[in-house]
Amino acid sequence: MTQETPFAPELAVQRWFNTGSPITLAGLRGKVVVLHAFQMLCPGCVSDAIPQARRLHALARGSDLIVLGIHTVFEHHAAMTPVALEAFLHEYRVTFPVAVDAPSGNGPIPQTMAAYGMRGTPSTIVIGRDGRIVSHSFGSEDDLALGLQLGALLALPAPSLATRADAGGCTDAGCAARP
Amino acid sequence: MTQETPFAPELAVQRWFNTGSPITLAGLRGKVVVLHAFQMLCPGCVSDAIPQARRLHALARGSDLIVLGIHTVFEHHAAMTPVALEAFLHEYRVTFPVAVDAPSGNGPIPQTMAAYGMRGTPSTIVIGRDGRIVSHSFGSEDDLALGLQLGALLALPAPSLATRADAGGCTDAGCAARP
Amino acid sequence: MTQETPFAPELAVQRWFNTGSPITLAGLRGKVVVLHAFQMLCPGCVSDAIPQARRLHALARGSDLIVLGIHTVFEHHAAMTPVALEAFLHEYRVTFPVAVDAPSGNGPIPQTMAAYGMRGTPSTIVIGRDGRIVSHSFGSEDDLALGLQLGALLALPAPSLATRADAGGCTDAGCAARP
Amino acid sequence: MTQETPFAPELAVQRWFNTGSPITLAGLRGKVVVLHAFQMLCPGCVSDAIPQARRLHALARGSDLIVLGIHTVFEHHAAMTPVALEAFLHEYRVTFPVAVDAPSGNGPIPQTMAAYGMRGTPSTIVIGRDGRIVSHSFGSEDDLALGLQLGALLALPAPSLATRADAGGCTDAGCAARP
Repeated sequence: MTQETPFAPELAVQRWFNTGSPITLAGLRGKVVVLHAFQMLCPGCVSDAIPQARRLHALARGSDLIVLGIHTVFEHHAAMTPVALEAFLHEYRVTFPVAVDAPSGNGPIPQTMAAYGMRGTPSTIVIGRDGRIVSHSFGSEDDLALGLQLGALLALPAPSLATRADAGGCTDAGCAARP
Repeated sequence: MTQETPFAPELAVQRWFNTGSPITLAGLRGKVVVLHAFQMLCPGCVSDAIPQARRLHALARGSDLIVLGIHTVFEHHAAMTPVALEAFLHEYRVTFPVAVDAPSGNGPIPQTMAAYGMRGTPSTIVIGRDGRIVSHSFGSEDDLALGLQLGALLALPAPSLATRADAGGCTDAGCAARP
Repeated sequence: MTQETPFAPELAVQRWFNTGSPITLAGLRGKVVVLHAFQMLCPGCVSDAIPQARRLHALARGSDLIVLGIHTVFEHHAAMTPVALEAFLHEYRVTFPVAVDAPSGNGPIPQTMAAYGMRGTPSTIVIGRDGRIVSHSFGSEDDLALGLQLGALLALPAPSLATRADAGGCTDAGCAARP
Repeated sequence: MTQETPFAPELAVQRWFNTGSPITLAGLRGKVVVLHAFQMLCPGCVSDAIPQARRLHALARGSDLIVLGIHTVFEHHAAMTPVALEAFLHEYRVTFPVAVDAPSGNGPIPQTMAAYGMRGTPSTIVIGRDGRIVSHSFGSEDDLALGLQLGALLALPAPSLATRADAGGCTDAGCAARP
């Protein structure tokens, strides 16, 4: 059954904040990943989704849960530049890794946002230990419901590497949904 | 290791609300139980713990998660009578089962509250599928943290009945910590 | 113009809490009075109106602003007794004077609630320095809007006693709207 | 007594948003003005002060109360540019007039912020009908307290023009507190 849920497309990143070296989803195989897509001038992101991601990151210390942010700017590009994001992350005390989604060559929607088919921000994408998308939601997430979901994913053991290699055509180079 | 965590004492109940027939923890073996101890005139219960229990009960529909309330009155006994509680449950739209903790014969602390050694209200006690206490906390609980904990417990399979019978001296009649 | 707004009916009180001696509106002539009608098991009262009244009472220290509560029980009478109210006021740290509205002889609506024609709880009634009703609202009040209204009333000087005596048939014995 | 409180320094403005023509405090003499100083990347401004200013602006319709914002950027200048502010005002639905504080020639503190001696953002400055500063606070303001203050100011009649002209040396060119 889970074989029919898609693999999470690899992130297309212009630059990273809060990490010494670039992060790939492929490198996180075996972990549970929560990908928080936001824009720094999106009110619902600032009031709800980013505080939730911060709380989740604090709770995830020492576990197999990884919280990643991705700044998916699809409007007001001149306002939400990387230098503005850097100030935002500082002022809002965001300490989890945040990627700047790579701009598209032909439109306002950046590459990762397009690859995932996100409807806007905030979007929350949960990726299982096997690299497949478990859930993808738009808007604010309920803390209890998200916790229940993630707790269950973390309780399940990581699939063996052999099993994962057999399971599908996803390699360390990534699993783009729209090649 | 888990053999050393204590079994949850059976509830001592004066009367039930929101259930057609009395509930026992023994009868819920195999389920994950969240026991919310509260007093109707406890501000933190009203503002935080009871709304959390209501949200959890709504999310638990159709799952192995059971939310139970217990009214552990240890002060203002003349104010927090069962008839007052009934009005409270109606006004606050509490629909999960709520037990009235059985009064003690010799002091203000009711029987279940004493058996669990609760420090006050709100208290949240999480009981695993095997009937053992997983956690016991006093004060408000964080939604995300509680969700993560419960999600993990729900993801684990229920132990077989044979295993449980072998595991300890807990019968359908209950498992009182202080016989 | 203001001569056409009605005088506030005198309170009909079964007993008082948080005051050494009974209070009458007649005795508060010259002050601005905020009368907060509530029920201790009314969720909107507990979450919004009572905290607002407490904040207002704290701000009113040393001014001509008087905050009075009145417990207008019109349902669940067996649950919201004076002894239950006393515990409630203690637990919710309500320190402004609170009247228990006098029960009616022939129905669930108590006397003061009926005299004012309140629609339910919470109700907030603002009474000017001249003893007339300035506003009467049902449901939660916005802090800023209430503050603006009260600030204006407090800035206006108290009418002289002579003027007030001339203004209408309101005596120290009270000013019942429905004689 | 009030003659000893200082006149509000005139605003030094780089550009305006949400107004067809530039606004001066001199031109608002006779009105009560609330000046909300903020930075778009200041968390307390976004969560508390700007929502309060928006609510106040909505309540002020048709009254003598004027709400003005001023973007007093004193850090992260490259992030909080006028173009970024324009996007911010759009996304956060700020519709009251907002000035961009004029940069200083020799330091990070912009001119109006320096003239008022503001400690940071958010700062709330209340200016009376006579153009004098009534209060100046740093940090979040309580809704009820602010409402009480403004209601009182609005209830007082505007001083006559003659009186104002006599009262002090404040001209259309401004009233710098630190000449």
